[in-house]
Amino acid sequence: MKSDRDYMQLALDLAASAKGNTNPNPCVGAVIVKDGVIVGTGLHRKAGEPHAEVHAFQMAGDHAEGATLYVTLEPCSHYGKTPPCANLVKESGVSRVVVATTDPNPSVAGRGINLLKEAGIEVEVGLLEGEARKLNERFIHNMLSNKPFVISKFAMTMDGKIAAHNGHSKWITSEEARLHVHKLRHEVDGILVGVGTVLADNPSLTTRLPHREGKNPIRIILDSELKTPLNSNVANTVEAQTIIVSGKDVDANKVRQLTEKGVQILTVSKTEKGLNVNETLSELYKLGITDVLVEGGAEINASFLRAGLINKVLLFMAPKILGGMHSKTPFGGMDIDHIDEALQLEFDTVEQIGPDLCITAYPIGETR
Amino acid sequence: MKSDRDYMQLALDLAASAKGNTNPNPCVGAVIVKDGVIVGTGLHRKAGEPHAEVHAFQMAGDHAEGATLYVTLEPCSHYGKTPPCANLVKESGVSRVVVATTDPNPSVAGRGINLLKEAGIEVEVGLLEGEARKLNERFIHNMLSNKPFVISKFAMTMDGKIAAHNGHSKWITSEEARLHVHKLRHEVDGILVGVGTVLADNPSLTTRLPHREGKNPIRIILDSELKTPLNSNVANTVEAQTIIVSGKDVDANKVRQLTEKGVQILTVSKTEKGLNVNETLSELYKLGITDVLVEGGAEINASFLRAGLINKVLLFMAPKILGGMHSKTPFGGMDIDHIDEALQLEFDTVEQIGPDLCITAYPIGETR
Repeated sequence: MKSDRDYMQLALDLAASAKGNTNPNPCVGAVIVKDGVIVGTGLHRKAGEPHAEVHAFQMAGDHAEGATLYVTLEPCSHYGKTPPCANLVKESGVSRVVVATTDPNPSVAGRGINLLKEAGIEVEVGLLEGEARKLNERFIHNMLSNKPFVISKFAMTMDGKIAAHNGHSKWITSEEARLHVHKLRHEVDGILVGVGTVLADNPSLTTRLPHREGKNPIRIILDSELKTPLNSNVANTVEAQTIIVSGKDVDANKVRQLTEKGVQILTVSKTEKGLNVNETLSELYKLGITDVLVEGGAEINASFLRAGLINKVLLFMAPKILGGMHSKTPFGGMDIDHIDEALQLEFDTVEQIGPDLCITAYPIGETR
Repeated sequence: MKSDRDYMQLALDLAASAKGNTNPNPCVGAVIVKDGVIVGTGLHRKAGEPHAEVHAFQMAGDHAEGATLYVTLEPCSHYGKTPPCANLVKESGVSRVVVATTDPNPSVAGRGINLLKEAGIEVEVGLLEGEARKLNERFIHNMLSNKPFVISKFAMTMDGKIAAHNGHSKWITSEEARLHVHKLRHEVDGILVGVGTVLADNPSLTTRLPHREGKNPIRIILDSELKTPLNSNVANTVEAQTIIVSGKDVDANKVRQLTEKGVQILTVSKTEKGLNVNETLSELYKLGITDVLVEGGAEINASFLRAGLINKVLLFMAPKILGGMHSKTPFGGMDIDHIDEALQLEFDTVEQIGPDLCITAYPIGETR
């Protein structure tokens, strides 16, 4: 005999299987159980396609009558690209609905649950809620902030170095860890670096996965003075899209040349420390970018740090000690005088990937 | 019915309970089992006291006849402070001996096992050997190198910083992590820092544990020019011993003043990069110091790194990001050009201590 928890876990696993494909929508999974038998399953595969509940009810058919629906996110109550699922649930004849977490979307936010309760359906909310919220941390952040979810990712040695004094950094981490980063790229909408990284390494910033197609994130280059070379890999937009974020007072000729190559130029205001990263994120969100992997360098990382815009930290740590008085470290920028002024996080997971550790952490107080 | 493995695990647990108290000897535990019943247990508590086997046989008495002895280290075959245990085992009447690992001590090294086999006792070697060797990693290193086992310990933020630009570092890690460091101090013979740390922080380097007496390690200060202030905490030898390691050409008057305060001065040769750390370790071993916790600063850490003298790394990582272009990092020193020249290690354990992570790693190829 399986428990509510088992069925919800299955719904969460179904939801998670589409991670990275549903943006800007959340990942949602649904399971319908009648008399201890699973009669319907479904998941939201992609924005614009049916919601998880629709697939599950289609499969269940008449078996939904008197059954229990397990769903990882509150059924929607509004007309979006598809009709409201709450209505579908009401009409299905299920007698009980177990919801992992409410929908943070201001146009839902408990309304879906109320609709069901008013229809006399027994509703329980909060089963495996932590896991459900973590699965959709990106979506929840989007709904509450109207900004992309920012993942600060860096790779360093055990002594906190990302490169030797001369910039040599090939490779800090193992092939396994680098492959892991390519999987992450596949899951995010955008990947962001500073023009310094473009000038130093001329990276492609594309997703390279063996034996399968990877989705390329949009490449976002913070480049206040439009120094990105026309012949750089990121200016070649055949493989992947590129957005260069610059100040408003840049050379019109360079703008034209980059635009002709297919690069999109986004202009934002400047602060004394460079481009306004807060405004940059708001503008990127308006362009439909719901999450961004920030891959450095040290000054870009520091500008997100000081602006309080980091939502998650992903540290790949190699079992190496480099030393060197002038070796590079992952976060530079403005110096502060007291340790108390550091960004406070909490560790979430530690995973060994090949010889390296992948350590995740969230800023304390980050809404999850 | 318990297995050989269960009894050996118990012997290892008994051995480990004395960790830090047996120096320069190894930790050893013994369990004697007859007809599925434990008839004798023992452990080596302290150098000069009886070996584990002695206690176990004393408890077992006549029950040892025909029994099995589980012992974490090969019984000794030489006359040291106590008579050889191999003789005792032979005379006890046990019919079978299970040994976790052979003794690396060149005056034993398999001879104990041969003695038992020649007496017609069934001997098996290698059960839980990895764990047994790790428990005595310090002892094994001592036997093979005639140097103390060097543990490089540092505390840093997630972005590899040990202090702000101005040296402010109170506190990177939590109270729980700092308490853990005091437990470590209790377990080692020596704690080593550079004179820079003494001048900057005036640390006591003593073991402070709540609700119990902690053993103070010998404080070792690398101070080539004898700059340690006479009124510094480490020059006060009432609470703990201090050895200052200096060059040979130092001010005789300062030597006299420090000596009068009870400080021991150890002079070693210099290399172009400062004191000869290799020679320092050999001399410290001659003084009976079998393990040393190296606690920085960055230049001292780097001198052990570049000399290839680190045997274990202990990283306390706080869930904080400090940033800052001029923040301090744990290893400084000579810059190298390529990542491949970094010290290669392998991660061993990751433990959460309070909010922090304690990560251990061993250099690849380190004999364990």
